[in-house]
Amino acid sequence: ITVTSNQNYDGSTDPQFTEKFFTQTLDHFNFNSMGNGTFNQRYLITDQYWKKGYGPIFFYTGNEGNIWDFALNSGFITELAAQQRALVIFAEHRYYGESLPFGNNSFSVPQVSLLTVEQALADYAVMITELKQQLGATDCPVIVFGGSYGGMLSVYMRIKYPNIVAGALAASAPILSTAGLGDSRQFFRDVTADFESVAPECTNAVRGAFHQLKELSERQDYSHIQAAFALCKPPSSPQDIHQLNGLLRNAFTLMAMLDYPYSTHFMGNMPANPVKVACKTMLRGLDLLVNLRDTAGKNSLCKFLIKYILFILKMIFNDPSATVLLQACTEIELCYESNNETDMFPPMAFTKEIRRLYCSKRWAVVPRPGWLKIQFWGDALSTASNIIFSNGDLDPWANGGVRRSLSSSLTALNISGGAHHLDLRGSNEADPVSVVSARKTEADLIAQWVKMERTRLQKFV
Amino acid sequence: ITVTSNQNYDGSTDPQFTEKFFTQTLDHFNFNSMGNGTFNQRYLITDQYWKKGYGPIFFYTGNEGNIWDFALNSGFITELAAQQRALVIFAEHRYYGESLPFGNNSFSVPQVSLLTVEQALADYAVMITELKQQLGATDCPVIVFGGSYGGMLSVYMRIKYPNIVAGALAASAPILSTAGLGDSRQFFRDVTADFESVAPECTNAVRGAFHQLKELSERQDYSHIQAAFALCKPPSSPQDIHQLNGLLRNAFTLMAMLDYPYSTHFMGNMPANPVKVACKTMLRGLDLLVNLRDTAGKNSLCKFLIKYILFILKMIFNDPSATVLLQACTEIELCYESNNETDMFPPMAFTKEIRRLYCSKRWAVVPRPGWLKIQFWGDALSTASNIIFSNGDLDPWANGGVRRSLSSSLTALNISGGAHHLDLRGSNEADPVSVVSARKTEADLIAQWVKMERTRLQKFV
Repeated sequence: ITVTSNQNYDGSTDPQFTEKFFTQTLDHFNFNSMGNGTFNQRYLITDQYWKKGYGPIFFYTGNEGNIWDFALNSGFITELAAQQRALVIFAEHRYYGESLPFGNNSFSVPQVSLLTVEQALADYAVMITELKQQLGATDCPVIVFGGSYGGMLSVYMRIKYPNIVAGALAASAPILSTAGLGDSRQFFRDVTADFESVAPECTNAVRGAFHQLKELSERQDYSHIQAAFALCKPPSSPQDIHQLNGLLRNAFTLMAMLDYPYSTHFMGNMPANPVKVACKTMLRGLDLLVNLRDTAGKNSLCKFLIKYILFILKMIFNDPSATVLLQACTEIELCYESNNETDMFPPMAFTKEIRRLYCSKRWAVVPRPGWLKIQFWGDALSTASNIIFSNGDLDPWANGGVRRSLSSSLTALNISGGAHHLDLRGSNEADPVSVVSARKTEADLIAQWVKMERTRLQKFV
Repeated sequence: ITVTSNQNYDGSTDPQFTEKFFTQTLDHFNFNSMGNGTFNQRYLITDQYWKKGYGPIFFYTGNEGNIWDFALNSGFITELAAQQRALVIFAEHRYYGESLPFGNNSFSVPQVSLLTVEQALADYAVMITELKQQLGATDCPVIVFGGSYGGMLSVYMRIKYPNIVAGALAASAPILSTAGLGDSRQFFRDVTADFESVAPECTNAVRGAFHQLKELSERQDYSHIQAAFALCKPPSSPQDIHQLNGLLRNAFTLMAMLDYPYSTHFMGNMPANPVKVACKTMLRGLDLLVNLRDTAGKNSLCKFLIKYILFILKMIFNDPSATVLLQACTEIELCYESNNETDMFPPMAFTKEIRRLYCSKRWAVVPRPGWLKIQFWGDALSTASNIIFSNGDLDPWANGGVRRSLSSSLTALNISGGAHHLDLRGSNEADPVSVVSARKTEADLIAQWVKMERTRLQKFV
């Protein structure tokens, strides 16, 4: 089955991907008949830039979502492939998009239990090894790319499978915070900082609006709240208010993450510089609650909140159908809290205990705090090499990642004025110089890795 | 539960191990209620040499068998602990000894499916991490040790968990041949070479005896065979002869592996220099078949064949109750063949197809050739560091391992006149100078690794 792309969301040259399916092992860590079953794992491939049998392979380690979304919003990879004559593959993560191991049954218990980071990495290791054989590319160096959770997977591929992967570009990969390292207040503090940097009045207005909402709910003036937020039905309990607070907080989070200097269509439709646009809305009139509603949920800016509500909900554990939540219930630790002191949001704790209760009830799983740090090294990365950790300083995920170079081959790049994995996007006129420079450094390092790996591979000939 | 050792099989100082049990996660790669179950994993520990809270931890990554057998035959580790003031832990591999995840039910299908290399490594990673906490040893560098399959596990621990393990001494670890790399004729060729080096007449006599056996069986002179080998009942088919050939071949294999310069009680009771003793027997009279019987199976030398028949059988896939066979049916490739040209044994093929049929029938599993090479890097080890690959040139497993240093921190040591992981055994007056020298190099390298790791760990304080 092949489908060809005819549209490139981030405006870069259309690389004309072909959609294919790979017969993948169901359970890499179990050798019985069930484990040896297979499923169809989707991948996108383009060889239009490839120097066949010689050029490198640029392999995107797909993350939580339809692989087309990542392929069509990572134009840098294909731009670089054109320069370095690379084969490009975007692999879809198991249990997302169309790569469902048990079809529509995939999300039941226990079928869903084969959704783990380890299985996903083994998928990529096996897929790369076999595709290299099939394509006559056994001597071609492989570089992995990924953004966000996909960037975490890229790091893990390089540290766990350096026999297969010569280097990794991990863009906006929060490998430390998701391993339970760092401060649980960091995330929403950094969301707040983005709005504060536009104007301190903006965060004051947001605080004021949340404070009004709190007062109304304490008076149980639910009809006023319904009217102010144009809700379909009035809230009726503190839990409803908690949910509303969560939704509003997410809207701000998403604007900070996607604070690109041009309009994007990655997670919904975002205008250029959404944080600035949001602050303008927050400060336009005297009714703070209406401003808050208009900022977060109702005006044309934030249609994404309605259209992409599922995606947003996934981000914070509220949607029971989102399998990304299972991942956050097992290996990946996302216990970020707001407290109204280091951030502008209402105090919303997210403790290990809350996590444990939710995960046990919803997925019949028990989180294992500390496991990710054991399995994927946490901050003990000194024996690794050939990894770029890029982060933009507008991105609330950035400070959950590696911000300082750890050695000459573990390079941290800061992209001043950059939002969530801006560097992976195709070039744009509105790009800040910082990202242009970061992409240049990335291209140079990747070319070096490819050269080194070619030497290593040819030793075995 | 604690039991204390009162005997040390290899004659080194009794380190007075205490036997303990660790509450271990049942399935590290599955987070549902079954995966989150636990079992009691046995380990032996001694702190009598330890500079508490400061000295390194020497951790033996247990292999296929009762952990006491390894602890009491690896005196070098405790001798080194005394020098370097280390804490010593010997951890038992899941599904062996008393570390049975499902008690007596552990060997049923599907319970047995949690016996994998990946699970065993995760056991050790979790155990080390938690014991370091419990013992106030978080800043203590960890060095792993292992012999044979245990040495493979040591290598894998260092390459997959360098965040936890600062270095590995892998003694007689056939990491290449078990990953399907190399020549399937190597193993029995090297067994033969050991006997050839004692006297070419010896291998000629062995060949001659096998030839006589072949002629008798071709004439279906089964009663003659019964008499010559003192069998309980006569063989009745070519399959029986095939089994007999296999048993005899194993006896020679074990003598080559355990060709130590002093008598040992590791896998049965072996005299000093068993290969020499065997050749003397093979050459003592004119009846080659009787000599063969006396060499391989009946004289006092080879009581081990009867007493340890299970162990020996495990080695070559014939015993249906041995779980090590499951491991050889899933990840570990042991497709060694004899052919009577490059070795002195009857031609006995062991192809991937034979393996597949046996494994499917006996264990309901399908081997995945190539998986071990993907998962544990095969010969693509250049990014690894701090590993010693020691091998003795009498050991038929040696040439399935790493024989040449790969970098300044991937050191191959050859022990001239050494059998299977001789260097791990306690010092003995009969030791060849080669092993004394190898142990000295190992001690120096390990001291360096400990020093480097201390610097790294203290950075995080």
